[in-house]
Amino acid sequence: MKAEIIAVGSELLTPDRLDTNSLFLTRRLNQLGIAVARKTIVGDEHDRLRDVFREALSRAELVISTGGLGPTLDDLTREAVSDLLGRKLQLNEGVLRRIEGRFRRLGRTMSENNKRQALVPEGADVLENPVGTAPGLWLEPDGRVLVLLPGPPLELQAIFTQHVEPRLARLGSGLRLYSREIRIAGLAESEVDQRAAPVYSGYADVQTTILAAPGEIQIHLRSWSNDAAAAERTLKEIVERLTLALGESVFTTSGESLEQAVARELTRNHATVAAAESCTGGLLAERLTRVPGSSAYFRGGVVCYSNDLKTAWADVPPELIESQGAVSSAVAQALAAGIRRRAGATLGVGITGIAGPAGGSPEKPVGLVHIALADALGGSERAVQLSGDRERIRWQASQLALDLVRRYLLHLPPGAHKSSAGGQD
Amino acid sequence: MKAEIIAVGSELLTPDRLDTNSLFLTRRLNQLGIAVARKTIVGDEHDRLRDVFREALSRAELVISTGGLGPTLDDLTREAVSDLLGRKLQLNEGVLRRIEGRFRRLGRTMSENNKRQALVPEGADVLENPVGTAPGLWLEPDGRVLVLLPGPPLELQAIFTQHVEPRLARLGSGLRLYSREIRIAGLAESEVDQRAAPVYSGYADVQTTILAAPGEIQIHLRSWSNDAAAAERTLKEIVERLTLALGESVFTTSGESLEQAVARELTRNHATVAAAESCTGGLLAERLTRVPGSSAYFRGGVVCYSNDLKTAWADVPPELIESQGAVSSAVAQALAAGIRRRAGATLGVGITGIAGPAGGSPEKPVGLVHIALADALGGSERAVQLSGDRERIRWQASQLALDLVRRYLLHLPPGAHKSSAGGQD
Repeated sequence: MKAEIIAVGSELLTPDRLDTNSLFLTRRLNQLGIAVARKTIVGDEHDRLRDVFREALSRAELVISTGGLGPTLDDLTREAVSDLLGRKLQLNEGVLRRIEGRFRRLGRTMSENNKRQALVPEGADVLENPVGTAPGLWLEPDGRVLVLLPGPPLELQAIFTQHVEPRLARLGSGLRLYSREIRIAGLAESEVDQRAAPVYSGYADVQTTILAAPGEIQIHLRSWSNDAAAAERTLKEIVERLTLALGESVFTTSGESLEQAVARELTRNHATVAAAESCTGGLLAERLTRVPGSSAYFRGGVVCYSNDLKTAWADVPPELIESQGAVSSAVAQALAAGIRRRAGATLGVGITGIAGPAGGSPEKPVGLVHIALADALGGSERAVQLSGDRERIRWQASQLALDLVRRYLLHLPPGAHKSSAGGQD
Repeated sequence: MKAEIIAVGSELLTPDRLDTNSLFLTRRLNQLGIAVARKTIVGDEHDRLRDVFREALSRAELVISTGGLGPTLDDLTREAVSDLLGRKLQLNEGVLRRIEGRFRRLGRTMSENNKRQALVPEGADVLENPVGTAPGLWLEPDGRVLVLLPGPPLELQAIFTQHVEPRLARLGSGLRLYSREIRIAGLAESEVDQRAAPVYSGYADVQTTILAAPGEIQIHLRSWSNDAAAAERTLKEIVERLTLALGESVFTTSGESLEQAVARELTRNHATVAAAESCTGGLLAERLTRVPGSSAYFRGGVVCYSNDLKTAWADVPPELIESQGAVSSAVAQALAAGIRRRAGATLGVGITGIAGPAGGSPEKPVGLVHIALADALGGSERAVQLSGDRERIRWQASQLALDLVRRYLLHLPPGAHKSSAGGQD
């Protein structure tokens, strides 16, 4: 079964907003064996909306729209679809009562406009909205399925989960999407592809996509099948072979973020970590504490931009800063050792570098970052030259720091950093 | 002039990827007076691609596609468009030489596949790619304009800026989009709308959109005009009237982020700030240091999850933690005062709370956050109950902390926090 998604809303055609609801819908549709063949984004204009729905219904067995079901006059999805299908809009008393009840419970008065949300095209099934006022609508014009959902993500997700998913599952063909994902740190994209291609090219029925993100490469494997056992067996086999080919640069095969993988290894090793950051400005600490329960392995961190705070908060000797400069291998190592001792952690991480855009020099250009790791016996350090803007340099530095901790806990060498090249289409 | 954007790539129909290139294109097209009427996202399939291009060219005077110009066999945009327009693909020697030269400079050997990127439909203008191998292509079928651009953002942006923009400007009608944006912190969306509606409803030719982000409300004003002076005058007037109606809750009318607005006020006041964070885990420090040049006003920060580090790093008395609990007004104030003194900053910020998902109790539920600000004479503190997941709670807490600093520097009261309600479509 093929589906199309229509995202309705003039704000989605401005430079400020993306349709993100389709990601949720795609994931859940894929799990039901339904591929998304096209997505269309259109504004709140009656005639254009009607055209978009007409075209989509001429191509796809399932059309799902999001947005345009609000209470105001510029919300036109209901009207456009009713016109297209030649069905009258009727006030649905049940829906109206639920909307009135909702306003009463919130202690607010319902505006006249909200009555519009109780208008239902003849013959449509009402999909109750457990978290908002606009219900979803299910129609079956000419043997197609057309589902209209409101735009707010929580409402759309609740209605989809409670009402749409079970209905689609009953219609389903048995074909399901099976997918796996491998994430890699410390290898360049070309290196990953060179090692992975001999494996994945042998599986014609598994669709392989290699995606490069800053400081990370992902391999996405997708296979449509009506034989769950066979599909899972094939994916398991290819994941095992790819993991063998890529070695410990693979940090997860189960969708974890790098900070989650590091959290797992720290926990497994009963180890704790502390961070002294300069150019990353707290990003490493922030990422380590994104993971729920991080207090078990994250002791604490300091952000010390100035030289005096590097000394006061992480015991970096002032004469070291004087002789080597704040951005230097020696200062990174002193930050790591100092914060480790001060926080009473198993491991200390020190980061110092030049995130830009200003502050670079011929000897120490923007993007130069020193990252050090200290344990009870000593430490190691890496200097890297990163490219991109301030945000990208900071992010890549935090990726490298996390990977340094991960590799240490796995008794691996620090890994060869390569900046990802511009790349082709 | 109306444009449509076609984003090509099967990966854009998976749950993992969004088309973000269209945001850049929309912004630049709008500046040229060109509105985007529709966006279509389609996979790398020859016949579907041909259909999508045919349909778009039947509706819009300008069609811009992104993606599908890579070197591999699944990149089919060139072929689909050539088929649709009945134009042969020809090897362009100039393009081929540039691609070969690029590989030579990078010290790599060119694969046979890359020759595909030198194929050009008859009659198309080649738009040289200054940062990659795939050139853009400009065609004018039946008086329409069709522009094919590669998918990698840097390549697309470079080709658009160097080649497409000047050509479109020459074609332009003179109608331009003028826009302004007002960002607000410390007011709920309904409050903003109530104060703003009497103003903006008086301007029929200015399109007003109110967007709610966590801890922030934005008012976007857009006006199409061929009279620059009149449009700017109108927008200036409405911005002034809205700023008057919304007061100092407006933190910017020039597109700054909240951290940039805080940076500006700190700089203007020759003030510095330091942060002691618990539940936000470094997010406040990370945001303050996103701004280039932040070392001028950000002294430093500590992330102290554990009670002992709250004492060791920010001088919070252990007996205070014992008697009040780590998540309390008194501890937030002690964190703020302690870090201010230790960092030698004008202002100290302390944040302690429960970001969840675990760790809540009936008296101190998940989402309870205390935020304190200390200066040389004392301090102030706010307790808020935030909603949402861990990420959202942490973000909102950092927004409130930034706004607390901003309001202090403007000699304003701390502002009434209201959680943004679920909202309707």
